Amino acid sequence: MSYQAPLRDMRFVLHELFDVSGHCQQLGNGLERETIDGVLEEGARFAAEVVAPLNRNSDEQGCRLQDGQVTTPDGFRQAYKRYVKQGWASMTGPLDFGGQGFPQMVSASFHEMLMAASLSFRIYSGLTEGTVLALDRHGSAVLKERYLAQLVSGEWTGTMCLTEPQAGTDLALLRTRAMPQADGSYQLSGSKIFISGGEQDLSANIIHLVLARLPEAPPGVKGISLFLVPKRLVNADGTLGARNALSCGALEHKMGIKGASTCVMNFDGASGWLVGEANQGLACMFTMMNDARFQVGLQGLGIAEAAFQGGLVYARERLQSRAISGAKAPNKAADPIIVHPDVRRMLLTQKTLSEGCRMLAAYTARQLDLEHHCSAAKRRAALLIPIVKAFFTDCGQEVASLGVQLYGGHGFIREWGMEQLMRDSRITQLYEGTNGIQALDLVRRKLLGDGGSELNALIDELATQVAQASRQAQMAERVGQRLQQWRALGESVLQACRHDPEEIGAVSVDFLAYSAYVLLATLWLQAAERASAALAAGSSEAAFYQAKLQAADFYLRRVLPRAGAHREALLAGAGCLMSLPEADFAF
Amino acid sequence: MSYQAPLRDMRFVLHELFDVSGHCQQLGNGLERETIDGVLEEGARFAAEVVAPLNRNSDEQGCRLQDGQVTTPDGFRQAYKRYVKQGWASMTGPLDFGGQGFPQMVSASFHEMLMAASLSFRIYSGLTEGTVLALDRHGSAVLKERYLAQLVSGEWTGTMCLTEPQAGTDLALLRTRAMPQADGSYQLSGSKIFISGGEQDLSANIIHLVLARLPEAPPGVKGISLFLVPKRLVNADGTLGARNALSCGALEHKMGIKGASTCVMNFDGASGWLVGEANQGLACMFTMMNDARFQVGLQGLGIAEAAFQGGLVYARERLQSRAISGAKAPNKAADPIIVHPDVRRMLLTQKTLSEGCRMLAAYTARQLDLEHHCSAAKRRAALLIPIVKAFFTDCGQEVASLGVQLYGGHGFIREWGMEQLMRDSRITQLYEGTNGIQALDLVRRKLLGDGGSELNALIDELATQVAQASRQAQMAERVGQRLQQWRALGESVLQACRHDPEEIGAVSVDFLAYSAYVLLATLWLQAAERASAALAAGSSEAAFYQAKLQAADFYLRRVLPRAGAHREALLAGAGCLMSLPEADFAF
Repeated sequence: MSYQAPLRDMRFVLHELFDVSGHCQQLGNGLERETIDGVLEEGARFAAEVVAPLNRNSDEQGCRLQDGQVTTPDGFRQAYKRYVKQGWASMTGPLDFGGQGFPQMVSASFHEMLMAASLSFRIYSGLTEGTVLALDRHGSAVLKERYLAQLVSGEWTGTMCLTEPQAGTDLALLRTRAMPQADGSYQLSGSKIFISGGEQDLSANIIHLVLARLPEAPPGVKGISLFLVPKRLVNADGTLGARNALSCGALEHKMGIKGASTCVMNFDGASGWLVGEANQGLACMFTMMNDARFQVGLQGLGIAEAAFQGGLVYARERLQSRAISGAKAPNKAADPIIVHPDVRRMLLTQKTLSEGCRMLAAYTARQLDLEHHCSAAKRRAALLIPIVKAFFTDCGQEVASLGVQLYGGHGFIREWGMEQLMRDSRITQLYEGTNGIQALDLVRRKLLGDGGSELNALIDELATQVAQASRQAQMAERVGQRLQQWRALGESVLQACRHDPEEIGAVSVDFLAYSAYVLLATLWLQAAERASAALAAGSSEAAFYQAKLQAADFYLRRVLPRAGAHREALLAGAGCLMSLPEADFAF
Repeated sequence: MSYQAPLRDMRFVLHELFDVSGHCQQLGNGLERETIDGVLEEGARFAAEVVAPLNRNSDEQGCRLQDGQVTTPDGFRQAYKRYVKQGWASMTGPLDFGGQGFPQMVSASFHEMLMAASLSFRIYSGLTEGTVLALDRHGSAVLKERYLAQLVSGEWTGTMCLTEPQAGTDLALLRTRAMPQADGSYQLSGSKIFISGGEQDLSANIIHLVLARLPEAPPGVKGISLFLVPKRLVNADGTLGARNALSCGALEHKMGIKGASTCVMNFDGASGWLVGEANQGLACMFTMMNDARFQVGLQGLGIAEAAFQGGLVYARERLQSRAISGAKAPNKAADPIIVHPDVRRMLLTQKTLSEGCRMLAAYTARQLDLEHHCSAAKRRAALLIPIVKAFFTDCGQEVASLGVQLYGGHGFIREWGMEQLMRDSRITQLYEGTNGIQALDLVRRKLLGDGGSELNALIDELATQVAQASRQAQMAERVGQRLQQWRALGESVLQACRHDPEEIGAVSVDFLAYSAYVLLATLWLQAAERASAALAAGSSEAAFYQAKLQAADFYLRRVLPRAGAHREALLAGAGCLMSLPEADFAF
């Protein structure tokens, strides 16, 4: 299947809804509208022409491990070279180390395109950006000097080595050891699993960030430190030295993202260097978690957009049965299936979830850009990130599944590409903290963490916008009611959780979903307001804005009702979850 | 992963809820409780010991096509031989042709086990049963004499050849031709796709039932006839003759059910014989559609049960983090994840959907058993079948996805088996009529077809039961309210659809889902009533019945709320689906 970046919708979101130029002025990065649009057009070409054509084959071919070497699918090496050469790798990197310092609000659009074109291909560079972030924030001057520029340029890539067989969600259980050496370095020993890009043939070196325990470190998460462990040692002059004592022991056989190598990594006394303070490894990882989780959210969004495009192409081409109101294409053997109401329901669900998530992505990216200078933005980002990660990836899976459904039996056949989107996107609900963990983060850390004040601040802001929505009074009234309900629900959840901590896990997933649906409703209202204004001003793009109005109407009528079900379910409380003895779940 | 048939729950449903012995007496087949239980125990052994162990490898190995011959995965041949030898193939076949004539209410439990153990393996025999049914009902005495006994025994297998590249949902478009021959036979020419078991190495012969057009047949579905086309011709004495002019041109590469061969079948002037009347082919197929769709529903149920079992095993074994209320397994490194409320939410959703669908399967099977003698049962079955097919398969997919989620990152890894369940079950929402088509069938043919009278008859019956539910008055009140709401909603839907036919497709999927959730609620209430009675009578299985009460409570509090969202969505009407011009879905 082909992919074309939704540039018109991206411009709508960036310029018309969120004034990205003003945002860039505030950030002082000198980016102007024309530059931004030009970059995104270039990015769209790269995603469509270089990356997307590799995706189908990457799934069939996968990665191969032989004699410790991993071969990525055909074309990945060449595409990655172009990615580096054209400067896409350094887009968000720090200026001091050769990066271009693009704000998230702009780069997120390009990254969405990459996710849509090939999630497998994007995983390698995405993790490198995370490595850059962690090293830039926590690494010593010496480490930065030796590693950062090559990571920023993409010449080298990075990984995150957290998970061990017995330690997934619960990192307190991790066992990898780091022994201090006389020269100030450490020797790392242990085994890590699920390491994306742990070994590959794209880059000259791979820089692993590894969580491990120092001798005598306290037990649990307070005894975990972060280490930089390169695949090849780097000499003082920056040239590559010997192979480090680490290797890829196996590749996992997975449901999807088969073009991304998922490695078992064995560290056998590998040389490493401490990043940040001893025993502060988890805190170091946490500072980059918002960005990493935001990226995974974009994966869900990218997949959703790709599945919507795939579904729409097919719905317009596939001839099957006649419209119930009479033939729409009487000169053809049957009507295109887009005439059928249920097909439209599926397409509009795909469309409004994708476009809705795109609006929320931009809004969240703005907070991420501002969070270093503005504590309010930091709190806002912290509140939104678990929602973005979990909800976008749930949407990615749902929208991909709708893509399969739109194709009928053909959706199940590999060559059409829709089932691959379902398989690829399924990992996004699991990694970087399962979606259940995101929901716990939202309720425990964020909501209970500040007694609901940031949630209420967000609702206040949204309520102000709703109050100003004069062009779409009916929609505004509906959304306003939901906002009031959200505020009350947040209060109920807070009280229940304070009264019984089991309620935290009992309400979390449904509260996150409820919040997400209401958030998207407020964004769709804003989109409708903007569209109404454009239409009133006699825009030459009337069809575009009219479609925004109709999509907003669809979302509020046919998608938003789900919020009510989540609310009712979570208000049922923890009792009906906790009372059944473990032994009695089945007989 | 291993699989153990849920025999205790099956006995609960068959004996305690639906009095299968009384049902068998009514049918006059002489089956008694001990026999039924014995058969199901044997069946459970066969599913667990013979079939389930083949499933994982069948996914890795798939089917291979070489020189027109298909090789099924290792072990399928031997297992199929045992399946035939032990008489499982003939379980439901007609007595006149060597079948054992088991009622659906019994065989459905065994078939659920097969689906859970290996959907791929079950597909071959399931289609054969469909072939038997069609031939038994519509074939001439000569055809029956020549083909039925071997199909019933399983020595030969059968297929359904309906779909063509341009004709899926819309069979009016099919092009395969049948030319009459002087000897009363026909020569069939054309290409069929998605033919499960079209070629394989399990049986000595394959009997294809093929939809095709006679010369001068009227256009559309009124010009389609049904033909029997054997892979190998059968001599008058019953011995096998020459190869017929048909062949498997390719195997499809699919998302799942890789152990089931999915064939492109080419008919090149193949000899065939008319089944039923000329131009009545679709009607012939329709008479067996209830059974075929019921079987696909059981596939969803079987997958759901398998995923629940897989999830439960892991949730009890996987140690990760501590219960928020304090350590539950202080002598271990962490608590088993079943202590966490959100894990329990997932498990209980799996459990109550699986067990709920099992109750509805038995209720529906009873109607199928009675439908030949009782027009009320026939109407009831017709109403329920689209719900069973669509809702069970949606549940299968959801419960399998929850299974993946329960395993965290491991859920995405093939060796654990959970992702295979997701991939395998995805086809069930597509074939035998997509779930969207089921919903159209429910609203157009069933609800509008009789002006809602059968729906109201069903609601009357359920309301009577609710009124008699004296032990669980609170639950009964809740379910009773939903029944009233269902009745009113049915009336609204009827009126809306009469007023605007586009409403049929606009409401259909949500109305089906709404109906299913309310149906399951009434069954959970019945289960709770029965459990209360058993507890009051001092049952020695108090834990089992207590768990039923708690599961019912969970279902009503945490799953049933979804019905409200479906109701609200469908009441939004067709306008927000139909107004957007086709060209404006994306820009």
